[in-house]
Order: sequence, then structure tokens, then C-alpha cells
Amino acid sequence: MSTPLLIVDTDIHPGLNGDRVAEFLPEPWRTRFRSGNRSSGTLGYWNPNGVNRVDAVLEDGTRIEQDPQALARHLLDEYHISYGILNVGSVLHLGVSPEPDYAAALISAMNDVVIHDWLPADPRYRASIAVYPNDPELAVREIHRLGDHPGVVQVIMPSAARMPYGQRFFHPIYAAAVEHNLPVAIHPGTEGVGISGAPTVAGYPTSYFEWHTNLVSSYIAHLVSMVVEGVFVKFPSLKFVMLEGGVSWLPPILWRFDKNWKALRMTTPWLERPPSEYVQEHVLLSTQPLEEPEDRRHFTAILEMFDAGNMLMFSTDYPHWDGDTPDFAARAFPPELRSRVMGETACRLYGLPMAVAA
Amino acid sequence: MSTPLLIVDTDIHPGLNGDRVAEFLPEPWRTRFRSGNRSSGTLGYWNPNGVNRVDAVLEDGTRIEQDPQALARHLLDEYHISYGILNVGSVLHLGVSPEPDYAAALISAMNDVVIHDWLPADPRYRASIAVYPNDPELAVREIHRLGDHPGVVQVIMPSAARMPYGQRFFHPIYAAAVEHNLPVAIHPGTEGVGISGAPTVAGYPTSYFEWHTNLVSSYIAHLVSMVVEGVFVKFPSLKFVMLEGGVSWLPPILWRFDKNWKALRMTTPWLERPPSEYVQEHVLLSTQPLEEPEDRRHFTAILEMFDAGNMLMFSTDYPHWDGDTPDFAARAFPPELRSRVMGETACRLYGLPMAVAA
Repeated sequence: MSTPLLIVDTDIHPGLNGDRVAEFLPEPWRTRFRSGNRSSGTLGYWNPNGVNRVDAVLEDGTRIEQDPQALARHLLDEYHISYGILNVGSVLHLGVSPEPDYAAALISAMNDVVIHDWLPADPRYRASIAVYPNDPELAVREIHRLGDHPGVVQVIMPSAARMPYGQRFFHPIYAAAVEHNLPVAIHPGTEGVGISGAPTVAGYPTSYFEWHTNLVSSYIAHLVSMVVEGVFVKFPSLKFVMLEGGVSWLPPILWRFDKNWKALRMTTPWLERPPSEYVQEHVLLSTQPLEEPEDRRHFTAILEMFDAGNMLMFSTDYPHWDGDTPDFAARAFPPELRSRVMGETACRLYGLPMAVAA
Repeated sequence: MSTPLLIVDTDIHPGLNGDRVAEFLPEPWRTRFRSGNRSSGTLGYWNPNGVNRVDAVLEDGTRIEQDPQALARHLLDEYHISYGILNVGSVLHLGVSPEPDYAAALISAMNDVVIHDWLPADPRYRASIAVYPNDPELAVREIHRLGDHPGVVQVIMPSAARMPYGQRFFHPIYAAAVEHNLPVAIHPGTEGVGISGAPTVAGYPTSYFEWHTNLVSSYIAHLVSMVVEGVFVKFPSLKFVMLEGGVSWLPPILWRFDKNWKALRMTTPWLERPPSEYVQEHVLLSTQPLEEPEDRRHFTAILEMFDAGNMLMFSTDYPHWDGDTPDFAARAFPPELRSRVMGETACRLYGLPMAVAA
């Protein structure tokens, strides 16, 4: 019999029970860890409160946003919403995936589910089709595949990106969108994910709180790029929709943008007018999240600094817990803007008959 | 005699005469290439119009900003400026150099020149000392070396950075600054240079025009980080000065910031008050470049949305051609803010006797 070997295994992975870990975690971290969002703060930027409303659940336990009829009943019926644009959230992570083929295939499958299962479920639904923007050839193919479906009203891409969206690399996407008369929208949520690089200009922040406050920078980068690169000169009918990017930051940036154009337009001889004019004609914003200054007159003052009536469109961001109900949003706007912001501007953009919900 | 070898040199570097290149360059690129800024657009982001005023030259050909007496005469005397804070521009590139030792040594040498040659030249001069922020140990050493010099009133660092400045890595710099009762300032100009990463959240833009319009994002990132990381809680006497970052973007970001704090403050239990309150107490901004909306009442409205009288400080940005003269800046502010913005707030911050220039 040989001498027993000394054996040392230098890599074993025990599974720790989360409840047991929580016992050793002091507050406030324990509550956050227990909130059901256990990945919070460990990988990527996640809202420590979770994403969806905890009350958006049917009696049988189904989540409302997973059932087309239930969503129509609990959101559209409840709040007298005439039309709802469906923007699937999970496409945003896929949009910054390093793998074009898998990402584009999965995004297409999700577009198909929306078209097959959601659009037929209620006449008030319209859909954005998502694309994988980092392979414009695949994106163009998807736009041609689905762009003429009568329920499709928009192309959507993540605002997270490794190149500003005005650059020529992306122009085939805009050409295809224009061909099908579809606006192109961007939506935040995956800044810092996948191939998109750091989510602030100064690198990686430490918290979702910081990450979220910085999201306006993502919108500034794309907006400036779309104008400076001449996308709206090249595609005069293109509309660009900045969803969930906030509102009040826009006028100050446009002032800076116009001032810079006066001094620097030798760089961009194709821009014959101040940038703010291209923005006013081609760019729209969704309302959620609205800034809420202590003194609400400050928000009203901001609304007078740009063409809010023709550029702002209401959104709930349902079923996210930090969303806005129509009554909340409507109160934020003076009467002369209200009907346009709450629905008319969106009807014009998406070509929807202006029928008010009963 | 051996057979002659066939010889092919596959890498030779001819020197092309710039004037000859210009002959083949169409407009508007030819004018830009000939403007004296030949590196424009080839490496980094350079103002295609150059940086300095072409008229800031003495009769003997010396540039005014290179002569302490001439600068005092042509700027301070001419515009009745009581004090001028000297911020050497070249330290900003060094601040994002990958090489800590060389960068810090060269920055120290530049600080020495300011102290030896500039401060004694005119009693109205005060100086910022620059540090290399990416090696806090070296930065702290520099602050201790020069921080008690009576003409030194501030520490300056580039706003270009690879990490947001609130992160703990940088805290020794703030501890040292506070020890010498010095505010810490940031200044733009080298975003995208050296180790600082892409100058927009969406990656590298194509032009200086875009680059410059996006600079506010750099300031948003640092401002949010300084507050969220609790720097002002840890260093209650610290003042943070955001030079040349613009003004009007601030209130909308503070609204977003405060709203996010309400929902997300579990992440930052050390913040006991809304972020805007820390900003109001600890952060100051310089005026150049002021946004110039078509309707000037919009700018006045912005000034009512934050504590402009205690947070804004006049700056010329001399000798840059896009700078502001005191008369231009003074006109932008209503009478009740003017004296504070033009001088009093800076005197209080930097501990300067409030003597009005004759």
C-alpha cells in the first residue's frame, strides 16, 4: 500500500444561502439585498429598489406586463389612454451585445412576439421594432422585414452605444427607417453594459444613483452627433425620438450648441442653420421622467424655452415603479400645452387617428 | 562579382511640404489647414480657429500672455480688474498623462514659474497650483510644498479623468487642499486625451464642435460623483470650483439629482439632505462661456433657478479668442447679482480684500 497522498483542492465553490448571508449584512445593505434584487451593485447598474411596480400583479399571480389583455385593461382602460406604444425593455441589453448574430436573432424573435401576440390583442397597441444597431446590415434587414406592418410605428435602439449615432456607420439604419416612414427612437438603460463603454465621461461611477443622474449625457452625445454629422440634412424626413431621457436639460444644451455653431461651423459646412432649428424639426422627447423642481414655476419656465408643444410626448414607462400616470403628467403642463403633450403630438408623429378614449 | 540583389525598401517616410498639400486640399478644409492649426482634426480635438486671440501681441511680437507685466497692463488695467487668478493651460494635458513622475515633475516646474515669475510681477495676481490627480500621493506632496504660499489660492486639475473625482482614490487630495484652506478647481480642455477615455458617453465624436458641446457631461459626472460619494460630508470646508464648464445646465441636473436622491438614497446613507443643498454650499462655477439664448430673458430665468449670486464667479478665459470681457459678462447679469458675480463671491472664496480697481 502506497503512502497516502497529501491532497489539497485549491478551488471549490460553495453555494451560500442568501438568507444566511443577509443575517451577517448590516443595514441599510441588508434591506437592499433582501429586496429581491440580489444582483444589485454587484454586476452593472441596477436600481436598488428593483424595476417594476410590485402591485402590477393579477389575482392569479401573473405580472400585468406579461399579459396583453391585462395590460390593456389595467393601464389603457384605467387611464383612458387612446394608444400605447409598446417598447420591449430586454432588447436594450441585446443592443449592446458583442455578438451581432445572436443579438439580432433574439431581437427579431422578440419583435415577432410583439407582432403575433400583442398587436392583435388590442386595437390601441402600436409597436416599436427593435434593431441591433451595431450591425447596420442586420438592422436594415429587420426594418425591411417588419417595417410595413400596420402596427409598427417606430424603430428603437438603446441609447447605450460605442459610437455616437450620428456617425456614417449608422446611416443605413436611418435610410431604411425613412423608407418605411418610421421614426427612430433611443431608450436608456444599458449605458455601461456590453460594448458600450463607461457610462459617464469620467469613467465608471459607483452607484445606480450616479449612473441614472448621468444618463442625460448619453442623450447629449447622440443629439449633438445626429445634428453635427448632418443626419437630418441627409434624411430630411427622419424623426428622432429620445425616450425617457428627461426634458429640462434640452434648452441649455441647445443654447450651447447654437453658440458653438456660430464659431465652429467651418467644421460642418452642411449645417446651414443653427442646430436648435434641426432639433426642433426632427427631434421629439418623451415625458417620463419629468424633472420636479421644488418651485414648479421653474419647470414651466423651461417649457417656454423650447417648442414643447411639438416636441414632447407623454409616456408612463409602465410598469416601472418610477413611472408617471397620465394625471400626474398632465398636471405638470400648462393648459395650452396639455392636449398636444398628452396625445396629439404622438398621433401626428405615428400617424394615428386622433380619437379620444371614452 | 555576385548577382545584384533585388532590393525593395517597404517603409520610407517622405516629408510633405504643407503649402504643397494645401494646394490639393479643397475649401473649406484648405483655410482651416492653413490657419496655423495644422494638427486640427488629425490628432485629438482642436479648435479649428485656434485657441488664442490673434491680437494679443505686443509691438515687438511677444504674445501678451507670455509677459506678466504686459498681461497686467492689457487685461487687468484695461478692464479695471482687481484680481486675476492665473490658471496655466498646459498642465491640463499633463494631468491625463500616463506617466505620473514626469507629469508631476513638469507640473511642479510650471507651478514654480508662476510663483517665481508671475506672482511677484503684479500684486493683483493670484495663482492656482496644478497637481497630477492620478497619483494622489504626488498631488498631496505638491499641495504641501506650495499650499501655504500667500499668492496660492487654489488647486487645479483637469476635468478630463478616467475616474469620477468623488471616488475615494482622490480623497487625499481633498484632505490636503482643506488643510491649506484651498478650493479645488477643475478645468476642461483635455477630455479624450491621454488616459481619460472617450470624451462622450457614446464614444469618440468626430469634431471639436461636438467635443466642446459635450463638455458639460464631464462636469455632470464629477459634480454628481463629488456629492454622491460624500466628499462634502467628509470634508465640510471643501469648495469645488467648476471652471469654464458653462452655467445653464446646472439647475436641470440638480432637479434630476434631487429627484433621484428621494428614490435612491438607500445607496448613500451619508447624504442627509438633497444633493442640491450640498452643491449650493460647496460648488462654484466660473462664467465663461455663458450660454446666450436668442431670448436673453431665458438666461435670466435660469439665474433664478439656483443661487447664482453665491455660486457664479466671473472669468475672461484670457487670452482665448472665445473669452468674455468684463463688460460683456456684466451685462448678462441683473443688477442685483452683478457685483457678486463680477468679484465679491470670488473675493470671499479666495480670501481677497474687496478693493475695487481704480
